Amino acid sequence: MSFDRLMERIVEVQNPTVAGLDPKLDYIPEFIRRESFAKYGKNLEGAANALLAFNKGLIDALCGIVPAVKPQAAYYEMYGWQGVRALTETISYAKEKGLFVITDGKRNDIGATMQAYSTAHLGVTQVEETCFEAFGADALTVNGYLGTDGIEPLLQVCSERDRGIFVLVKTSNPSSGELQDRKLETGETVYRLMGERCESWGKELPGKYGYSGVGAVVGATYPQQLEELRRELPHTFFLVPGYGAQGGAADSVAPAFDQNGLGAIVNSSRAIMCAWQKESCQEEDYAEAARREAIRMRDEIVMKIGALRLP
Amino acid sequence: MSFDRLMERIVEVQNPTVAGLDPKLDYIPEFIRRESFAKYGKNLEGAANALLAFNKGLIDALCGIVPAVKPQAAYYEMYGWQGVRALTETISYAKEKGLFVITDGKRNDIGATMQAYSTAHLGVTQVEETCFEAFGADALTVNGYLGTDGIEPLLQVCSERDRGIFVLVKTSNPSSGELQDRKLETGETVYRLMGERCESWGKELPGKYGYSGVGAVVGATYPQQLEELRRELPHTFFLVPGYGAQGGAADSVAPAFDQNGLGAIVNSSRAIMCAWQKESCQEEDYAEAARREAIRMRDEIVMKIGALRLP
Repeated sequence: MSFDRLMERIVEVQNPTVAGLDPKLDYIPEFIRRESFAKYGKNLEGAANALLAFNKGLIDALCGIVPAVKPQAAYYEMYGWQGVRALTETISYAKEKGLFVITDGKRNDIGATMQAYSTAHLGVTQVEETCFEAFGADALTVNGYLGTDGIEPLLQVCSERDRGIFVLVKTSNPSSGELQDRKLETGETVYRLMGERCESWGKELPGKYGYSGVGAVVGATYPQQLEELRRELPHTFFLVPGYGAQGGAADSVAPAFDQNGLGAIVNSSRAIMCAWQKESCQEEDYAEAARREAIRMRDEIVMKIGALRLP
Repeated sequence: MSFDRLMERIVEVQNPTVAGLDPKLDYIPEFIRRESFAKYGKNLEGAANALLAFNKGLIDALCGIVPAVKPQAAYYEMYGWQGVRALTETISYAKEKGLFVITDGKRNDIGATMQAYSTAHLGVTQVEETCFEAFGADALTVNGYLGTDGIEPLLQVCSERDRGIFVLVKTSNPSSGELQDRKLETGETVYRLMGERCESWGKELPGKYGYSGVGAVVGATYPQQLEELRRELPHTFFLVPGYGAQGGAADSVAPAFDQNGLGAIVNSSRAIMCAWQKESCQEEDYAEAARREAIRMRDEIVMKIGALRLP
């Protein structure tokens, strides 16, 4: 009912980073695409199966290195229900390999509908007498614009099934300030208000290492806000996007961590998935290239923040 | 590139309401469930096919009455990729029957990822030389917490393919005020700021009847805000949830409309889908009961706002 399991994995592999699995067809080596198209056709099914094969290779190469993966739902939905099936199979394969899985879906709704999302991504769906995991992730990113009604249903599932959520607080993109940086009449910013809500929602999901099951998404591209939020939200675990491809570096993510090197997990997607293109190595080597990049990123961050330990 | 097509449909059937297709298994008559489980098993596939059969019956009964349907993605995701396939087939069946389809997904992300969502739900996905519609809706609900970076990619697809979006502005749930009603230091509320963004994003998608392709979700449960927003956002078409099951009535939605009876579409989900349970009619009659409720709702609203006409 918190991020304890994730933190234990992080300390075990001494790596506070998560590999984003956002597989566009362009990122996938030709030999994988060719094989999949030959088998399933040049259609959504062929594309979806190429994503899955690509992901499995990445997961095999990364599972000893990173504690977690973060598939981004959009890239699977782009290939229709066939792509969504590839997402399901990616999640289940990653879990078999011992990885913590964060589905990046930024889902949001209210009441019974939010309950349906919670059930879908973190819970179990009952069909007559039997329960099925529809997607079965360990955590889900969500958007809190609708308030507590949109978060409560998640807390219940998280509590029952030891799952967690990450609420968008201060996102990494250039225009995130349009709403998030706006000051309320109390002087508080919108992102800070959202952060405070995370602290408050998190009280229902306390963890043994000081962090609750309600985390926050805070971008690496705004180190000052990252520092402020780390200081003011002591029980909120951070998911930090924007490292690498979006321009954040080890210096900028350091403020996300506490004195034990915990409190955050930094995401990198494109830099890992497309390492083989950047290295211009043999395409058959794509998974090894991804592993090398994941190790480089791990070392860069750990060099900065020191050894990670549970309190 | 706007909601012109939707408004033309609305005027054609003289009905500014949309039927929400949020099919929980509990809402589905037993004869449909039994048949589907017998054919596909008591599993996610059996459940998903029951949803689809239920929806098809509803669509057949409603297609002459309502201009549009709004499937809520969460209820399909709850049944895994099999459920998502049922969503795809529901959308395509509804379009065959001439209905305008609004996928209620409240999607949100930035840059390339938001582009992937746009492609998935409103655009076409390229696989080698061929393009496929992954979901193929006419409009998508989205969440604007991330700012313009999260909306731009949608505008492009909407412009190219005559599609629209509805941005969450003031939602119908009790806790929507936690963030949305907060006043900024300028005195403006957060929902109003979001509404103004819709007007501004909408400039890229002008329509011939005065409304752009960037609509807003504004709940029936807050008639005062509905009135304020209708007055202040003259080019923004509203999707109004919260009618019926959530307590809004014809009086409370009337302020959403302009002098031509246009400017908004009111959603009802449960009251229509579950009309057969409320009426306690034969379950085989569920679609007819839904049709009766849709007609009742149409008449109730049209009685209030008068005949609908294009300007």
